[in-house]
Amino acid sequence: MRENYLLDNKLSEELYEGIKNLPIIDYHCHLVPQEIYEDKVFDNIGQMWLGADHYKWRLMRQAGVDEYYITGSAPWREKFRKYAETISLCGGNPLYTWSMMELSLYFGIDIPLNGETADEIYDLAGKYITETQLSPRKLIEKAKVEYIATTDDPADYLEYHKEIAKDKNFKTIVVPAFRPDNLLNIDKKGYSDYIKKFGVRAGLHIDDIGDLRIAIRLALDEFVARGCNFADHGIEDFPSKIYPREEAEKVFIKALLGNDITKEEKDIFIGYLTNFLAGEYKKRNITMQLHIAVKRDANSLLTKTCGKDAGSDCIGDIIDGTRIMSVLDTLNNKNKLPRTIIYNLNPVMNSQLAAICGSFRGVVPGAAWWFCDHKRGILNMMETMAEEGFIGAFYGMLTDSRSFLSYARHDYFRRILCSLLSKWVIEDDFPIESAKTLAYKIAYGNIKEHTSKADPVSAGPEIQ
Amino acid sequence: MRENYLLDNKLSEELYEGIKNLPIIDYHCHLVPQEIYEDKVFDNIGQMWLGADHYKWRLMRQAGVDEYYITGSAPWREKFRKYAETISLCGGNPLYTWSMMELSLYFGIDIPLNGETADEIYDLAGKYITETQLSPRKLIEKAKVEYIATTDDPADYLEYHKEIAKDKNFKTIVVPAFRPDNLLNIDKKGYSDYIKKFGVRAGLHIDDIGDLRIAIRLALDEFVARGCNFADHGIEDFPSKIYPREEAEKVFIKALLGNDITKEEKDIFIGYLTNFLAGEYKKRNITMQLHIAVKRDANSLLTKTCGKDAGSDCIGDIIDGTRIMSVLDTLNNKNKLPRTIIYNLNPVMNSQLAAICGSFRGVVPGAAWWFCDHKRGILNMMETMAEEGFIGAFYGMLTDSRSFLSYARHDYFRRILCSLLSKWVIEDDFPIESAKTLAYKIAYGNIKEHTSKADPVSAGPEIQ
Amino acid sequence: MRENYLLDNKLSEELYEGIKNLPIIDYHCHLVPQEIYEDKVFDNIGQMWLGADHYKWRLMRQAGVDEYYITGSAPWREKFRKYAETISLCGGNPLYTWSMMELSLYFGIDIPLNGETADEIYDLAGKYITETQLSPRKLIEKAKVEYIATTDDPADYLEYHKEIAKDKNFKTIVVPAFRPDNLLNIDKKGYSDYIKKFGVRAGLHIDDIGDLRIAIRLALDEFVARGCNFADHGIEDFPSKIYPREEAEKVFIKALLGNDITKEEKDIFIGYLTNFLAGEYKKRNITMQLHIAVKRDANSLLTKTCGKDAGSDCIGDIIDGTRIMSVLDTLNNKNKLPRTIIYNLNPVMNSQLAAICGSFRGVVPGAAWWFCDHKRGILNMMETMAEEGFIGAFYGMLTDSRSFLSYARHDYFRRILCSLLSKWVIEDDFPIESAKTLAYKIAYGNIKEHTSKADPVSAGPEIQ
Repeated sequence: MRENYLLDNKLSEELYEGIKNLPIIDYHCHLVPQEIYEDKVFDNIGQMWLGADHYKWRLMRQAGVDEYYITGSAPWREKFRKYAETISLCGGNPLYTWSMMELSLYFGIDIPLNGETADEIYDLAGKYITETQLSPRKLIEKAKVEYIATTDDPADYLEYHKEIAKDKNFKTIVVPAFRPDNLLNIDKKGYSDYIKKFGVRAGLHIDDIGDLRIAIRLALDEFVARGCNFADHGIEDFPSKIYPREEAEKVFIKALLGNDITKEEKDIFIGYLTNFLAGEYKKRNITMQLHIAVKRDANSLLTKTCGKDAGSDCIGDIIDGTRIMSVLDTLNNKNKLPRTIIYNLNPVMNSQLAAICGSFRGVVPGAAWWFCDHKRGILNMMETMAEEGFIGAFYGMLTDSRSFLSYARHDYFRRILCSLLSKWVIEDDFPIESAKTLAYKIAYGNIKEHTSKADPVSAGPEIQ
Repeated sequence: MRENYLLDNKLSEELYEGIKNLPIIDYHCHLVPQEIYEDKVFDNIGQMWLGADHYKWRLMRQAGVDEYYITGSAPWREKFRKYAETISLCGGNPLYTWSMMELSLYFGIDIPLNGETADEIYDLAGKYITETQLSPRKLIEKAKVEYIATTDDPADYLEYHKEIAKDKNFKTIVVPAFRPDNLLNIDKKGYSDYIKKFGVRAGLHIDDIGDLRIAIRLALDEFVARGCNFADHGIEDFPSKIYPREEAEKVFIKALLGNDITKEEKDIFIGYLTNFLAGEYKKRNITMQLHIAVKRDANSLLTKTCGKDAGSDCIGDIIDGTRIMSVLDTLNNKNKLPRTIIYNLNPVMNSQLAAICGSFRGVVPGAAWWFCDHKRGILNMMETMAEEGFIGAFYGMLTDSRSFLSYARHDYFRRILCSLLSKWVIEDDFPIESAKTLAYKIAYGNIKEHTSKADPVSAGPEIQ
Repeated sequence: MRENYLLDNKLSEELYEGIKNLPIIDYHCHLVPQEIYEDKVFDNIGQMWLGADHYKWRLMRQAGVDEYYITGSAPWREKFRKYAETISLCGGNPLYTWSMMELSLYFGIDIPLNGETADEIYDLAGKYITETQLSPRKLIEKAKVEYIATTDDPADYLEYHKEIAKDKNFKTIVVPAFRPDNLLNIDKKGYSDYIKKFGVRAGLHIDDIGDLRIAIRLALDEFVARGCNFADHGIEDFPSKIYPREEAEKVFIKALLGNDITKEEKDIFIGYLTNFLAGEYKKRNITMQLHIAVKRDANSLLTKTCGKDAGSDCIGDIIDGTRIMSVLDTLNNKNKLPRTIIYNLNPVMNSQLAAICGSFRGVVPGAAWWFCDHKRGILNMMETMAEEGFIGAFYGMLTDSRSFLSYARHDYFRRILCSLLSKWVIEDDFPIESAKTLAYKIAYGNIKEHTSKADPVSAGPEIQ
């Protein structure tokens, strides 16, 4: 890694110098609280990289690697070697850069990874892990992570969050985020069982929507007591509009009785529950995150043989913007629109979405993510938000990752951010002082302010 | 503003030198004829900038500015200060550049605008307004505007156009453009009242489509007599196809009786009326402009409290290209397709639209506009038209603005144009002589030729 | 043409040096086998360029050229002059570059083409044609084309392929590709006549789907015997899902009886036949190419007066990715998914499509094509595939052309490829050794390997 990687002029270097050492606030990720709590020393870099990372699995399949070396029973060293061979031909894919950055930042290894160097690097990394007793918390501290919001099911007991909070030697704040996907996915198998479990968690029996509302409120209060600032919706469907409780009640009862739910019925239910949840978030000053335009596990044969999240997720179809406007507008009219961040996976929607966000106070586009999380994707997301909206309100980078090594991506993002800001200044489109302020706000300031204090969106923002 | 702003090499400077002083032909804008006629000296830069510009209002809301300083009753100086604070963090948004260009070009002020300099600039601009008795016509003349096509309702009496035309000291040609949105929006409240008013204007009582056709023809003749060269359709809906008169007749009668009109009925009516209007335009050699993929006033609470056009307009959903092809093809078959310019607000449609335009003689894509009117958007529109079509037929820039200060955007556009042309030459994709000709034609020549002489598209262009 | 056209740094020149002389494998084109067989000396450059190239016709129409000089009866020299005038204003359109490259590479003419030079160039080219007795095979050999897959109807007797194969002096391999569009387009006029003809070719009478299956298998065996490695589907519709044989049988019988077929019925039929064909391809290790998102002959008046393929084709509407996933997933589950290349004409789909391809082994995006076949389009296709997938699996360029001169586009592509690879290396995103390997594989290696040996996608790729 060059020192000035991605920094193509003096000004970008200067901007980067000003923010490179700022702490990280990872306001959305999929780290497992239990792993942070247990803090076990890692086994080897093969398992660290290839044990669960379906980004890497996909890449290897596209390179023609046999499944034995991907999700099969090959030894970690051999899997690592196959991965090394693969990325030596994955030009333009961020996995190459991320892998190099992780080797450099966490293991101090600056040897280019390929089939020939794989074994040497595997051993060097292994030695480093043993010598430093490398573990989740060590990586978190090394990356200067100040705040982590994990992603948690409403039925979760949050016991590991409680335990982590007790340990005063570990300075990083680890709080839960409320992910109600299992509450929303009323058409999934086992829904009524899940609702039963959720009821047990809340200490009541859920027989209708009234009960569900009570249980959700209790869960939210519990989450807030544990420091929760964020909710996150990640289901595949986006409601076509807000529906009334009576219509949703029928669907909910039908589902509790174990009946199949149609696409239309699901729309009614999520169109109601989104409304209820948003209102509850707003009351508690919880920011609602929406992850939209995703299609999961598109290859059903792969899912059958390798399980869910094995690497056949796709970008979802375009969601009509008028649908999104309709939902936001109804919530806003009912004073139920909380601060909202919308992440969309289909980059085609970026432009319309930026225009929509700019029409409602407190609604902003989220960082480029997953298939869009690369140089062009990050630039395109930021430029679109800037051109059509107000980049000064951007909350910046998050990892959205299951891996403790992914904090390297914050450095990747900050370099790209400085490169973009420097371009604006050099092209005479923006003053240098403002660029410095923006660099700070987007890298850290905005999200720090957001997670530090109560800053609810005013109830009736448009009333003079 | 640097002299060579946006001109990143010698060649672009040379190209710009050749066109920078050409007059402006503003063939589509929303300037108010009464204001041109009355020519009142402006009050202050706060009102000039923030009195009606909902682009700026949106930006301030996204920056968290209280509505009191936006559409509320705060003094102009305070509103101006809040705006100055806002744009110091709006990197990448053209409002920063436009604001700087307007200060520089019209007021000779080259101080960067921000919270600290706001008061000084407010006073300097105020002094300049008073000393020069700055008024609409002064700005028009300063910007060397040769021709202005305003946007006018079919029921308008065009009295201000008549008055302006009488004044021989004012050299700029100010002509009306025919905007039949109120005729097309049959589902809007008050439609039958509007038709009554339109009938009065035409001197007849409109009871059916036959009457409507007569009234439209009379209005068009009146517009043409006042110099009209352009029509402009700006409704949210695009017809799915051309419908026959009989079907539209039923819908029209229903609307005249004050009944609600469904989405399907509206489609029938606009599918018919577009056909009729296009044919009438063609007879009169009027160019039809279509502004498509817009969704207006998405935030209904804002509309309720601050009125229409208060800053919650959005990019509309993608319109299927096959729908657009169907309408153009039917018109073409009936020899009713006039010269047509299609402006689309959803940049995702740019590619397909360029291919569609290239399939029908006399149909061309329009300039990047509104949410697309920024450096990347302008470049993308021009490059897409060039790659898939014929950039030599491009009519170039228009302001589409309500503000007399917006002529600065022509300079912005011309610089971007020269930058693009120079890139093609430098990359050896195009000869310099051709680039010079193109610069002239796109900046001025094409639209000058178009507004100067009768150049109807030949009736049956494809017959050998 | 500069030597280093499109090569903007030393590294790109070095990469280009390594691949510029590699042979060409044109794995998809529309060259006419009869013309290769007959190998007649060309008449003049006017006819060579303007006799059938509707890309050029479109451009001329957009420039306002009279149809007399396009598809009319004007002499070739005059048509050529009009074209020369047109391209002198077509900045940004690849036709300018392609024309210059063809003049330079094939005729040794490096004079910029425009209205003034048209006659001189016309004569110089004519002299060259006569002196060198320029013919199809001369052009093919000059371009170092090693392999050509033409596009052939299932009912074709492939007689010219047989004849060409017999001539041992002509080293280029010319093989057929199986294009079943006429079998799939069940709603087209004359379908039952076509099926009759196809039956005759196969030596049987086709009365039901059982017969059709037999005839298709026979035809495929015949194609394979003639060296066929590729099939190609180019119909406008993409099936919404895979349908069972029984449903398709009804539609097929209905069509054989000469009845009109609805859109829904066509969907059923192609949803069935795609499944059958894909399975047969897989058995024979034939690669399935899908050309999607095309709308042909949008201007019906032009089609009436000038015939089909006269220059009013368009980019088709966006096809929902979930539809494509559904078809691929069903085929994959049935072990009927052959190696597949998906070319899409609507660039808006690039991102989602790259993600879809990455979810199924052996499915890859195809090269940028037609309206996307220009510098930005080629770059965008490659960058998207790289960012979201694995560029190492890319098969690279093909001409998709009817003209023997189009091999110049391979040079165009190779230069763009080297420019992109060099950017990755320079920006420190990729090592130089890997870039060299990629350059070779994408320019030649991958497709060479593919056309040389049997490399079927493993039947159950996801089983560990």
